[in-house]
Amino acid sequence: MAYNVEETCKRAANARYTIGTISTETKNEVLLHAADLLVAGAEKILAANAEDLERGRRNHMKDSLLDRLMLNESRIGQIAEGLRQVAGLPDPVGEVLDEFERPNGIRIRKVRVPIGVIGIIYESRPNVTADAFALCFKSGNVSVLKGGSDAICSNQAITEILRKALKDCGVDPDAVNLIASSNREDTKRFMQMRDYIDVLIPRGSAGLIRAVVENSSIPVIETGSGNCHIYIDKDADIEKAIPIIINAKTQRTGVCNAAESLVVHRQILDRFMPAFSEAMKEHGVQLFADEDAGKFLPGSEPATEEDYAKEYLDLMMSVKCVDSIEEAIDHINRYHTKHSDCIITEDPAAAELFLELIDSACVYVNVSTRFTDGFEFGFGAEIGISTQKLHARGPMGLKELTSYKYRITGNGQVRG
Amino acid sequence: MAYNVEETCKRAANARYTIGTISTETKNEVLLHAADLLVAGAEKILAANAEDLERGRRNHMKDSLLDRLMLNESRIGQIAEGLRQVAGLPDPVGEVLDEFERPNGIRIRKVRVPIGVIGIIYESRPNVTADAFALCFKSGNVSVLKGGSDAICSNQAITEILRKALKDCGVDPDAVNLIASSNREDTKRFMQMRDYIDVLIPRGSAGLIRAVVENSSIPVIETGSGNCHIYIDKDADIEKAIPIIINAKTQRTGVCNAAESLVVHRQILDRFMPAFSEAMKEHGVQLFADEDAGKFLPGSEPATEEDYAKEYLDLMMSVKCVDSIEEAIDHINRYHTKHSDCIITEDPAAAELFLELIDSACVYVNVSTRFTDGFEFGFGAEIGISTQKLHARGPMGLKELTSYKYRITGNGQVRG
Repeated sequence: MAYNVEETCKRAANARYTIGTISTETKNEVLLHAADLLVAGAEKILAANAEDLERGRRNHMKDSLLDRLMLNESRIGQIAEGLRQVAGLPDPVGEVLDEFERPNGIRIRKVRVPIGVIGIIYESRPNVTADAFALCFKSGNVSVLKGGSDAICSNQAITEILRKALKDCGVDPDAVNLIASSNREDTKRFMQMRDYIDVLIPRGSAGLIRAVVENSSIPVIETGSGNCHIYIDKDADIEKAIPIIINAKTQRTGVCNAAESLVVHRQILDRFMPAFSEAMKEHGVQLFADEDAGKFLPGSEPATEEDYAKEYLDLMMSVKCVDSIEEAIDHINRYHTKHSDCIITEDPAAAELFLELIDSACVYVNVSTRFTDGFEFGFGAEIGISTQKLHARGPMGLKELTSYKYRITGNGQVRG
Repeated sequence: MAYNVEETCKRAANARYTIGTISTETKNEVLLHAADLLVAGAEKILAANAEDLERGRRNHMKDSLLDRLMLNESRIGQIAEGLRQVAGLPDPVGEVLDEFERPNGIRIRKVRVPIGVIGIIYESRPNVTADAFALCFKSGNVSVLKGGSDAICSNQAITEILRKALKDCGVDPDAVNLIASSNREDTKRFMQMRDYIDVLIPRGSAGLIRAVVENSSIPVIETGSGNCHIYIDKDADIEKAIPIIINAKTQRTGVCNAAESLVVHRQILDRFMPAFSEAMKEHGVQLFADEDAGKFLPGSEPATEEDYAKEYLDLMMSVKCVDSIEEAIDHINRYHTKHSDCIITEDPAAAELFLELIDSACVYVNVSTRFTDGFEFGFGAEIGISTQKLHARGPMGLKELTSYKYRITGNGQVRG
């Protein structure tokens, strides 16, 4: 029997007014209860996840993608901890953002309100199911989730538990909805549900995001694609540079805040390259370098134009030499995905120039790009990393899932 | 010779980094100088405007549209005054929106930045040309303007003056660009310039906005379409109600914040209707009423389903009776355009319910809907009234034309 996408979206839209007015206490009660149920239900979730992993291995899924898909008790514990953290965060709904009186005596209050119904399209990571629900729910929104077919069993197991938590607390379980279909046509249908869904947030690979941007009639917030750069300035401290590169490149390769491209000032090549080459060899990173950098990097391959723009999501990295910080900035602004970029320097003027001119959501000085993350920013969790400039940029937490309205009160004022 | 849309958009995109870093002083100097040049150039502008009006009359343009198109010395004075007001407003660029340190010692600053290149598609009102430039420029953005072909001569005259003001102050005149073409294909081409334009803001009729939403590959902020409602509660003060309705309906009919629909509580019909009927007759407003309201309204026509959803932009209004405030809220949330809606009541509980549940950008208690306006809100001017929930809602001024980025500084931190 065909899955009815419209039916699910319609039910979600019907739930929006109730969910938008739930008290903070009830919302927190649901989140804490859901956290407990997830931990208690770990066995069931892991059984479902094992099915997904087994199917993934049969389909020759890459190791980095299997790592994204894989759950274990510790990761389920992290998911539950994410829900508890969101319960502990202040409720953004109703916050007065501004308040002023006009000369004619009308009083204007700008108040934070939920967006309404938020659609999320994501790939292999089943933890997104609980994270996305928690953030949407705490900010007064209904969520409609469409995870990757790779993770469908894990997502169903998690969603069932979330809906049970809602019901147990006397809340409409349609606050969270899963499009439980592996049919590509259903995904396309979902992206046309403009009448029911207020915003669609894709979370995953560049390909997924492009497909959503191109096919959705619902307004989209672009997220996730990360060709993150590290620029080694001529005044870099190499003792800081190497551990940051190792961390940003190798700690977890399948994530959007991993570094993919290195840019090096020509004046520091002699001092920097030997240590860099050794570190990358030690960590098994394949390098794609331009001619001048390649001379210092035995085993590297020549970089193509494509390499500079590539999000490898693997133990690979492009390397490019520049004559100046200005050239580095131009190169990065040309090839990056406006996600996260970092300068390694001890020169405050260079740092300031980089912070000012790099057109990314997160611009770093002497810090690993891996920190671009809702947890690391203290948002409790994240729905994704926005790489666009409208509405929200960078890690999106609770506030980024709200809108506002103006409440205007007076005493018979008319316009002259 | 065909107009080269891509060439204009490319030049605009090239200007973005320079324009994004101009000092507040220079920006204000440009705006004040442009205001002076507009007033000094009034004769030239009015001559161009006369051409547009003449063409409009030949094409049998409606009076309300001719009113939108028409300039005179007083309106040019208002346009110049708008520029001066924007010069007097604080520069939003560089504002620190948030600043915090994480336990690992990294410092995160959230800073306001320009969006980049903003495209505006609008209709007959030539004042938008100067308003849009002023707001985009003060917020560090480059603007690409596509006005209606009705106003093409007026828009060219105004844009020439703005570009001269920029040049006189030593600023790249490509900070403001007009797509000076009346060819519909050029408008379509403009909406595909995703590589150069960061956001597209349509400003005009429901038809224009729909066309932009459907045809644009650039992210769009929906604006302007206003089916504004006034609800007369059973506890309304009729002395306040009548002047508010007259003002909202008749003061200026061709604007998006004019009232189009009246909803009346059945318990107040006897007391309210005679005064309402008389006032509307006096102001020449044609009413479209449901059966029960129609009994009180000689000369009214029966309302159809279509009338409830209609933005007349004329001396016409629909009238609907309800049994309760809840029914009124449901009716309004069903037919409105999420722009501006008003309750007339002396009951604070009814006012609060209406403010809470009406899903509009601006919700009013005992105030004319005509106040939904950037000037009236004290924003200096406005680029439009957003009727969507993403990014910005209601009157959009300077802050609504910015994004932000995170500047993160540390001392070698890596993620554990």
